[in-house]
Amino acid sequence: MSKTSASASPLRLGIAGLGTVGTGVIKIVQSQAELLAARTGREITISAVSARSRDKERGVDIGPYDWEDDAVVLAGRDDVDIFVELMGGSDGPAKAATEAALAAGKDVVTANKALLAIHGQELALQAEGAGSVIRFEAAVAGGIPVIKSLTEGLAGNEIARVMGVMNGTCNYILTRMEDAGLPYDEVFAEADALGFLEADPNLDVGGIDAGHKLALLASIAFGTQVDFGAVELEGIGSITIEDIRAADDMGYKIKLLGVAQMTGRGLEQRMSPCLVPASSPLGQLQGGTNMVVLEGDAVGQIVLRGAGAGEGPTASAVMADILDIARGVRLPTFGQPASTLRKARAARATLAAPYYLRMHLVDKPGALAKIASALGEAGISIDRMRQYGHQDTTAPVLIVTHKTTSSALDEAMMAFEGTGVLVDTPVAIRIEDV
Amino acid sequence: MSKTSASASPLRLGIAGLGTVGTGVIKIVQSQAELLAARTGREITISAVSARSRDKERGVDIGPYDWEDDAVVLAGRDDVDIFVELMGGSDGPAKAATEAALAAGKDVVTANKALLAIHGQELALQAEGAGSVIRFEAAVAGGIPVIKSLTEGLAGNEIARVMGVMNGTCNYILTRMEDAGLPYDEVFAEADALGFLEADPNLDVGGIDAGHKLALLASIAFGTQVDFGAVELEGIGSITIEDIRAADDMGYKIKLLGVAQMTGRGLEQRMSPCLVPASSPLGQLQGGTNMVVLEGDAVGQIVLRGAGAGEGPTASAVMADILDIARGVRLPTFGQPASTLRKARAARATLAAPYYLRMHLVDKPGALAKIASALGEAGISIDRMRQYGHQDTTAPVLIVTHKTTSSALDEAMMAFEGTGVLVDTPVAIRIEDV
Repeated sequence: MSKTSASASPLRLGIAGLGTVGTGVIKIVQSQAELLAARTGREITISAVSARSRDKERGVDIGPYDWEDDAVVLAGRDDVDIFVELMGGSDGPAKAATEAALAAGKDVVTANKALLAIHGQELALQAEGAGSVIRFEAAVAGGIPVIKSLTEGLAGNEIARVMGVMNGTCNYILTRMEDAGLPYDEVFAEADALGFLEADPNLDVGGIDAGHKLALLASIAFGTQVDFGAVELEGIGSITIEDIRAADDMGYKIKLLGVAQMTGRGLEQRMSPCLVPASSPLGQLQGGTNMVVLEGDAVGQIVLRGAGAGEGPTASAVMADILDIARGVRLPTFGQPASTLRKARAARATLAAPYYLRMHLVDKPGALAKIASALGEAGISIDRMRQYGHQDTTAPVLIVTHKTTSSALDEAMMAFEGTGVLVDTPVAIRIEDV
Repeated sequence: MSKTSASASPLRLGIAGLGTVGTGVIKIVQSQAELLAARTGREITISAVSARSRDKERGVDIGPYDWEDDAVVLAGRDDVDIFVELMGGSDGPAKAATEAALAAGKDVVTANKALLAIHGQELALQAEGAGSVIRFEAAVAGGIPVIKSLTEGLAGNEIARVMGVMNGTCNYILTRMEDAGLPYDEVFAEADALGFLEADPNLDVGGIDAGHKLALLASIAFGTQVDFGAVELEGIGSITIEDIRAADDMGYKIKLLGVAQMTGRGLEQRMSPCLVPASSPLGQLQGGTNMVVLEGDAVGQIVLRGAGAGEGPTASAVMADILDIARGVRLPTFGQPASTLRKARAARATLAAPYYLRMHLVDKPGALAKIASALGEAGISIDRMRQYGHQDTTAPVLIVTHKTTSSALDEAMMAFEGTGVLVDTPVAIRIEDV
């Protein structure tokens, strides 16, 4: 133990929520006491805990800690310096207890992306008014130190774009579909049986959870008030094994990709399936791993990769925040004072991008020509096109366009309808330049 | 500009060394004044600069700043809060000026890996005695926030291993050899002509520069006194295009890889050519990009990737340190007080690993059997072996062993000599489990 640790007062935690992450935090505090004290010069202790059930078997001894039935009471205890909020949920007890902690002058460490994505601005204002800090490294991309990298490591940069694959369940589903050649529904059921899905699966596969994370990153990156409502959300439910295979054939992978960038028309935040080059770091990402890409004017592109969920990785991120506070690091929630964060105008897909199109055409002479001229009339030029061999009377066609706007694409999709050569509704997926 | 910036005093820099990095730092301070003030609540100013030549054209206006011929004088100026040391060199003016700055109670931000790898412990002690901080994000892996990630982001972890490809020039040479099918000497000459090499090229290709970086990471990771002298160094000069091709054929890439890990026998620090799986993030790393892999008991594996050199990326890292100090972040140089860092026992390749062996055998019956039995007698079992077709009287043979110790390997290599079937000295390269 370091010399200073003897003199400095212990840092006392109150932990609300004893699921996987809370259990992981307790394990680290218990097993690494000496290491943590050496690194911070302070002893890290736990005063009290709170959870739904007191008696559940968790694999850690919570006997040494006071028990509180009510997280709000826990948050206000005199012997708590940091309220560690690991309950989850954007409202209800998590919000009430966080507000109570801030009102009582406590610091808050949370893994709750929903809470901050929706109430982050008001909570940050409350914290800064009270001289408290809110830290949330664990809320985004699990164990990857992405909040720290963006807020501090890249603080000298004007951020151009932030991207990420930040929902491990979706990436698991997409890569498993590809590897096993299974349809979405089957892999979804598998993931459910494995316990990979949230109680409300739409949080995962609908992109909501990842959208929360993107909104938090965007706030820090662009100095804007967190605005989850402005995130353009599209889940992975409509992705077919055919598209995964066809994309692969053209040299791409399909990812649920979050992209935030400041454009001339405002802040663009999208969480949607995208094609990325198979050879790019994002394209090579397999299974439940997360990846975040940060692009700054000075630093260029920084790629961070690691486990986005799980007991150890998420607890590691919670501990990083706790240890920063123990070391006296006190930054505003979103990197700059909440009162100085701008309200960004929301922009929707204003920047041109290439698109991947897949459709089935009736097998008649001139069918493809009609599609090609519909694209041409919308001002969209074709980069690559493939027509596949077929047994029935329809012809599968893949098109990769050059860069175009989403409005030009909408126009072309409308024109396709009038050609009379479409067998079904065409699939269009944006190709992100990573 | 934030409300606080008006009230807080400016943070005043003195910059010594106006090469690429120094110029990059001045550009950011000049062009991003508003952004930096918004993020830190303080104005960042430059009081004075110093370099070898005052009149060199640098693309930035240094007219507004006082000029000092002597970096030591600059370091002690009353109007300097942070001495920014960008001169380089482990001794001489860089060391003298850094010591002068600390003696005068200044904080120090440096990009100087050699200085800290060799004198880091004594400088950290001096800084902590004076209440000053030394920050060196730019010294390791350029723009990648690896010092921050390790010291702060993973502070809750017991670190198991740190690895990295941290010399972009070496990785450029190795990947260029592979892509263009050119021998080492030719690509080395190319890199030299492109200005990629240090004045003393052995700093790059001999692994010294990357070894300095590894020693710094190891100190933080394991709480030990930085000990560059204990780094087992091997450069890339002996890597042939044959080995690059043969490794590729077996599913591996050759990288100048740094590995630091704490073993039962002591701290192992190696900077040497290794084989890594072609499909791993390290294996996929192309050109001058850097990659660092951090492994912690809780977080698992975190991979960080980005530009390891160049004006913007390195200046970005320098700015991160400056802005941290502006925000009041004050950590010990190596993450915990220098007085608490242990002196580690140095261990050399104590952990077993698989090896890649390449050799030419005389083309006679029983030649391969002799090699195989020499391996068997040394207790080394063979994972895979390939004998290639050949036109002359020698047979090229590749062997991938199962895990073995370096001493067993040495024994086998000795035994090979006695078989009389070797045409030349066999090549043995460690395969790192990444």
